[in-house]
Amino acid sequence: MLNFEFILPTKIIFGAGEIKKLGKEIKKIGSKPLIVTGRKAMRQTGILDKVIGILKEVNVKPVVFEKIEPNPRAKTVDEGGKLARDEGCDLVVGLGGGSAMDAAKGIAAVAVSKRPVWDHVYSGEGETYIPVRKALPLVCVPTVAATGSEADSGGIITNSETNEKAGIFSNALFPALSVVDPELTFTCPEDYTIDGGIDIISHVLESYFTGTSTAYLQDRLSESIVKTVIHYLPLAIKNPRDIEARSHLSWSSTLALSGLINIGRGGGFPLHALEHAVSGHYDISHGCGLALLMPALMKYTSVARPEKFMEMGMNIFDLRFEDESVEQAAAKSIDAMKEFLDSVKRLLRFSDLGIGDEKFEIMADDIIKIYGHGKNYLDNPRPIDKTGILEIFKNTL
Amino acid sequence: MLNFEFILPTKIIFGAGEIKKLGKEIKKIGSKPLIVTGRKAMRQTGILDKVIGILKEVNVKPVVFEKIEPNPRAKTVDEGGKLARDEGCDLVVGLGGGSAMDAAKGIAAVAVSKRPVWDHVYSGEGETYIPVRKALPLVCVPTVAATGSEADSGGIITNSETNEKAGIFSNALFPALSVVDPELTFTCPEDYTIDGGIDIISHVLESYFTGTSTAYLQDRLSESIVKTVIHYLPLAIKNPRDIEARSHLSWSSTLALSGLINIGRGGGFPLHALEHAVSGHYDISHGCGLALLMPALMKYTSVARPEKFMEMGMNIFDLRFEDESVEQAAAKSIDAMKEFLDSVKRLLRFSDLGIGDEKFEIMADDIIKIYGHGKNYLDNPRPIDKTGILEIFKNTL
Repeated sequence: MLNFEFILPTKIIFGAGEIKKLGKEIKKIGSKPLIVTGRKAMRQTGILDKVIGILKEVNVKPVVFEKIEPNPRAKTVDEGGKLARDEGCDLVVGLGGGSAMDAAKGIAAVAVSKRPVWDHVYSGEGETYIPVRKALPLVCVPTVAATGSEADSGGIITNSETNEKAGIFSNALFPALSVVDPELTFTCPEDYTIDGGIDIISHVLESYFTGTSTAYLQDRLSESIVKTVIHYLPLAIKNPRDIEARSHLSWSSTLALSGLINIGRGGGFPLHALEHAVSGHYDISHGCGLALLMPALMKYTSVARPEKFMEMGMNIFDLRFEDESVEQAAAKSIDAMKEFLDSVKRLLRFSDLGIGDEKFEIMADDIIKIYGHGKNYLDNPRPIDKTGILEIFKNTL
Repeated sequence: MLNFEFILPTKIIFGAGEIKKLGKEIKKIGSKPLIVTGRKAMRQTGILDKVIGILKEVNVKPVVFEKIEPNPRAKTVDEGGKLARDEGCDLVVGLGGGSAMDAAKGIAAVAVSKRPVWDHVYSGEGETYIPVRKALPLVCVPTVAATGSEADSGGIITNSETNEKAGIFSNALFPALSVVDPELTFTCPEDYTIDGGIDIISHVLESYFTGTSTAYLQDRLSESIVKTVIHYLPLAIKNPRDIEARSHLSWSSTLALSGLINIGRGGGFPLHALEHAVSGHYDISHGCGLALLMPALMKYTSVARPEKFMEMGMNIFDLRFEDESVEQAAAKSIDAMKEFLDSVKRLLRFSDLGIGDEKFEIMADDIIKIYGHGKNYLDNPRPIDKTGILEIFKNTL
């Protein structure tokens, strides 16, 4: 196990119907919130009106900024920051999926720093960036179980001028409060529900496959989350109002990135790093991108650590092996994951998403630039250089 | 899953050798710490001198209160609180096992409230008590993996006049900082190491067997912790300086009571409640008391929920059942737990501890009084009244 620091200064109110507490809780934090949300869904589902109503009950009148696009754009974040300043807002509420919450983090930062958010983004080795030291207090209200932005201190922002996708990270960006009400995910469309489940799984599998260290306890915790998603995602697809399924997906999402599952292990298995390049260049959902690349990255990596993939098969999919070699067991375990992806309609190839190989070179260069951290390859049990990235892409064509 | 609030405002610094950071970190919190510790072990092992040396490096001179007994006494806590006030201490450091850390919580509270700690203890239905609203900032440095006091907001205090053992609970009692350095557990005696492992297991099994609710994810997390202890406790016994084993036990201990494992489920399976009465009346270790009562309580409870005990057998001990009835599977699963207890020398009966049945009645009355919460039985899948408690005691004679 590696040494680590753990901090999670976020108060989490969790459970069906708990959104009713938002007004009272927000009044403890500030008096004029900026609600940051997407362009349509929160309005259409009535959730935005519901939240405004809950605030009205305690005489709080929010400013609403409903312009966040999927893969939130730096310039939209900058616009939100200016609005927060101009309106004199003293807290920011991220309402929606990861895009809304991540954008809210960026807005909370730039409202204080008065800089373009891209100044704060770590966009690759040698690039200068200005750490976020202060931000407006933040409240997150997730309406999809997915990114876990409600219990972490980072946000992913897209630069539409350069098609780069990269992150802002700072302890100042932990939400002061997150209200995780699984009932708010009842109206989440099926595709988002599925993509969210894939995102949760990805968050806890990256460290599981690290080659840097091992950690028995954390591995069991990762498996717990993956098994929960595999168990409940099909139930949520079947009945979107299944509160047990929705609750389990929501709490899995919150825990997955809270630090508790992944700390004490090295990074590695760079599924998110690969994916960010793809959804930086194409407007596909993050979850689709993760599902898309997962099988080929697993196949590529398993050569170096087949026993770990075998363990995934045994502990997550309850496979048992007798005569198989460890390599065969690893292959069967990856097949089990592919079967699961297929069962939730996410066994994908680039061609399924209408994407060809035109930008493979550019995307590979982006990945090395942003995530290579000074080396020309990514941490992984089997190191991945540009050639490796291209191999994974080609195997996914 | 039940609704819940989760908050853990403790910064946790974890890992081998991290105690070296204590001085710098403490200076962020205060300038004159009261170190609260036991009467011998920290002095004998050199850990107390080491901590004082680390503080000296940053020119911090602590007051040392090394009078805490196992099962810390209310009057000792009161004496520590007076010392903190008299010396003008502005933070409290709990150094040692659960007794030292729990006593430190009590001292941090009474240093501010200027009341006897027993005024703040919830000692049973109908008793008045004064909630702890403010306390001196607290730093915990555990030297045994056991109680998890380093990441929770409660402490257990014993009233030596009445032989009652009960708790103080308040968000004001969360440590501001816990430094969890598994190397500090290298010198922990074998008996304490084993008892600590039993305590960790008990913390995550109580909710596992609750009859109030179910929670798939939390059950998997509980199993993760129990499996980790079962895996690493024998290794730590074999080689007390096995840093992987010690690290896993320490992190299991911290997580077990952090809230994350047990929230969202009802209480129940009142192993701690039963045990507190025993170690309130007899000076046996908490871990011995838990191990002592666990098999009979499991047997008593399994009648009401045999499928849950079968699940324990399958998921924790990797048992597989074919022709057995669910009751037989439950019995075999409890046998597996007994085999584990035996393997770590904790398959115990009252007679092994030199205890007869003289106080069974009094202890049963204490339990109903403190934990019965207005009803005359304890929450459990199979409700436990006084007769049930006596049955469990007698089956353990």
